Amino acid sequence: MNWEDLARELAQPTDSKIVLLVMDGLGGLPVNGRTELQAAHKPNLDETARRGICGLTDPVFLGITPGSGPAHLALFGYDPLRYQLGRGILEAMGSGVEVGREDVVARGNFATFRDGLVVDRRAGRISTEENQKLCELINKKIPEINGIRVSLFPGKEHRFVLRISGPGLSDALTDADPQKEGKPAVPARALAAEAEFTAGIINGFLEELKKVLAGESRANYALLRGFSKFPSNLPSMAELYQIKPAAIANYPMYRGLTRLLGMEVLEVGPETEDLFNVLEKNYERYNFFYLHYKKTDSAGEDGRYEDKVKAIEDIDRFIPRLWQLRPDVLVITSDHSTPSVLKSHSWHPNPFVLVSDRAPADEVNQFTEKDCGRGSLGRFPSLQVMPLMLACALKLKKYGA
Amino acid sequence: MNWEDLARELAQPTDSKIVLLVMDGLGGLPVNGRTELQAAHKPNLDETARRGICGLTDPVFLGITPGSGPAHLALFGYDPLRYQLGRGILEAMGSGVEVGREDVVARGNFATFRDGLVVDRRAGRISTEENQKLCELINKKIPEINGIRVSLFPGKEHRFVLRISGPGLSDALTDADPQKEGKPAVPARALAAEAEFTAGIINGFLEELKKVLAGESRANYALLRGFSKFPSNLPSMAELYQIKPAAIANYPMYRGLTRLLGMEVLEVGPETEDLFNVLEKNYERYNFFYLHYKKTDSAGEDGRYEDKVKAIEDIDRFIPRLWQLRPDVLVITSDHSTPSVLKSHSWHPNPFVLVSDRAPADEVNQFTEKDCGRGSLGRFPSLQVMPLMLACALKLKKYGA
Repeated sequence: MNWEDLARELAQPTDSKIVLLVMDGLGGLPVNGRTELQAAHKPNLDETARRGICGLTDPVFLGITPGSGPAHLALFGYDPLRYQLGRGILEAMGSGVEVGREDVVARGNFATFRDGLVVDRRAGRISTEENQKLCELINKKIPEINGIRVSLFPGKEHRFVLRISGPGLSDALTDADPQKEGKPAVPARALAAEAEFTAGIINGFLEELKKVLAGESRANYALLRGFSKFPSNLPSMAELYQIKPAAIANYPMYRGLTRLLGMEVLEVGPETEDLFNVLEKNYERYNFFYLHYKKTDSAGEDGRYEDKVKAIEDIDRFIPRLWQLRPDVLVITSDHSTPSVLKSHSWHPNPFVLVSDRAPADEVNQFTEKDCGRGSLGRFPSLQVMPLMLACALKLKKYGA
Repeated sequence: MNWEDLARELAQPTDSKIVLLVMDGLGGLPVNGRTELQAAHKPNLDETARRGICGLTDPVFLGITPGSGPAHLALFGYDPLRYQLGRGILEAMGSGVEVGREDVVARGNFATFRDGLVVDRRAGRISTEENQKLCELINKKIPEINGIRVSLFPGKEHRFVLRISGPGLSDALTDADPQKEGKPAVPARALAAEAEFTAGIINGFLEELKKVLAGESRANYALLRGFSKFPSNLPSMAELYQIKPAAIANYPMYRGLTRLLGMEVLEVGPETEDLFNVLEKNYERYNFFYLHYKKTDSAGEDGRYEDKVKAIEDIDRFIPRLWQLRPDVLVITSDHSTPSVLKSHSWHPNPFVLVSDRAPADEVNQFTEKDCGRGSLGRFPSLQVMPLMLACALKLKKYGA
């Protein structure tokens, strides 16, 4: 029996409220002896640590650096090793493309095809504007293939998302991408009999696209990879936990992911304060709130240490507004670490604090990686965050007699 | 490979002795800033913490509140998510009903049946005395059905345990209980072909019972649920660990559970001191002793904070008698927490201390939730208590070469 089965058995609906603030990529590594969290002036996050119980969470397990998908799945109580979201789905979510339960999506590159070979997998990194024009052209010229609707959504430079919509589609396909330059183009191949039809659609589309782009010098072909469908076995959070969840997130990736989990995705502006305004405005309508703060991760990804410090200080001013709502459970943590010095996600654990009347404070009074490591929760998997929050909100019945 | 497989491979018989004292429901939450353990005057428990290594254990995992069954299974090294004891078995154990390996047991309610409907699922909560008389009557009038022996064991008010004994019985049955009042009675239905015979016995018994109780105004019917057999795949502790285990427990539930695990269940009186007398008297005859102290849990369940403090102080006086036996391993811990303020079991971790020459003391010198959280064992699953105890008693060989 796993946590999901347990949740189905034990979860009970209550009016109690849970607020989960995810400061994306929060954990860091020291620069001149201090991590971004240690360097930041953040009296309210520290006061939260003083009021709550602290710990460190590992998104997958020691040493595994997760993408945003698995890291968030774990936080929401979905085993990140069990549920793997296809690259196409993640790219689509990241681009704000709506994906229906029947659709197949893929990541695409415009590429340069010459003398039977793929000579540039990125079509000379054409401009985003040129990409937009090409997608518009293709959408107009190739609205469908054999009754299956085809849509391209431009991304940055040479990247786009392909979505095909219609009945009977399968994502059991190999990439239509030779992976290396100087090789012939390869068609998508069906990995199962039920995908033959879809393979035909994809390869038919690529033939049509070649004709439409025949006059282009650089972007005269396209490569497609990571064919994927909406994960059909993903239960909703409402179903698993008997909660009414809302997502307050501004970035497409997190909006798409939470929509996949059946959360109500609320509209929110780009400013830090917007998160708190939307929370307060909707506080009576839901009983589980996920707030996503992106700036810490963006600064970390770019290696902007000082900006990450500022991003922490920026949100710190609003933390008292979370206290004032007096949720039954307040958690502030992260999905994964993004140390500025690494300019990337990392495997380091996430600082974690939970405030609840049913969780007597430990002795931690600073919200940093090191201090959280001394917290009474110790070090634990992100997958146990959801059970812990639900328990402290009295949303879980007893297991066994 | 799991712990059980490892245990079978590594356990070796030795004369070394292990004493495990379980103070049921020990962990608590603060009232006026102090948990029951923090408020109690308990010099000997504190001295034990000073001599030993401390930690906090999670019975299942973070956030999961266990019943006594799963919590004890974990402590004895049985995965509580793998082994699930049926409600009928637990009720039978709790009532002191002996359950043979072939028997099927169920929880029963006397109920009121009128005009084809179950109108009161508890028969107006008849008195325990009335219940006893009805069970006696039914046992006399319906000794068997189709060669299968039928026995009712009265519980409190309207509750009883049904046991049926004979060859070829199965517990793959739905509840014979409409769950709600105002609904027609429902028969037990077989969930597998091999349970058809048992379903016939149960439904035949209910028909006979209706006739016997026809003259009753309130208790004229019965509802049955949680049909269960002795878990057939449960290995004994002797078999797994090469130990000779004895249980010193006064309450039926714990006596029944340890009997299921193949422990020798010793007779013991209701006083705290009795636990220690029986331990001393039998110390040479076994090499693993489980002592169960119930008062901490009972007080917690009732919300009697002061009584829980007293229960801790009460047993504290006898702790030196454990030291004097000089067991190779002495552990004092709990199965689960029962904070008085919650008046129920909870998910909070258990204080844990282990004293052994092979476990150099850490710096903890008070036996409280908070202090144990700073112990050198950190926070760990209850399922690892058994391997740790066996190791410190040199009862586990090396794994691999």
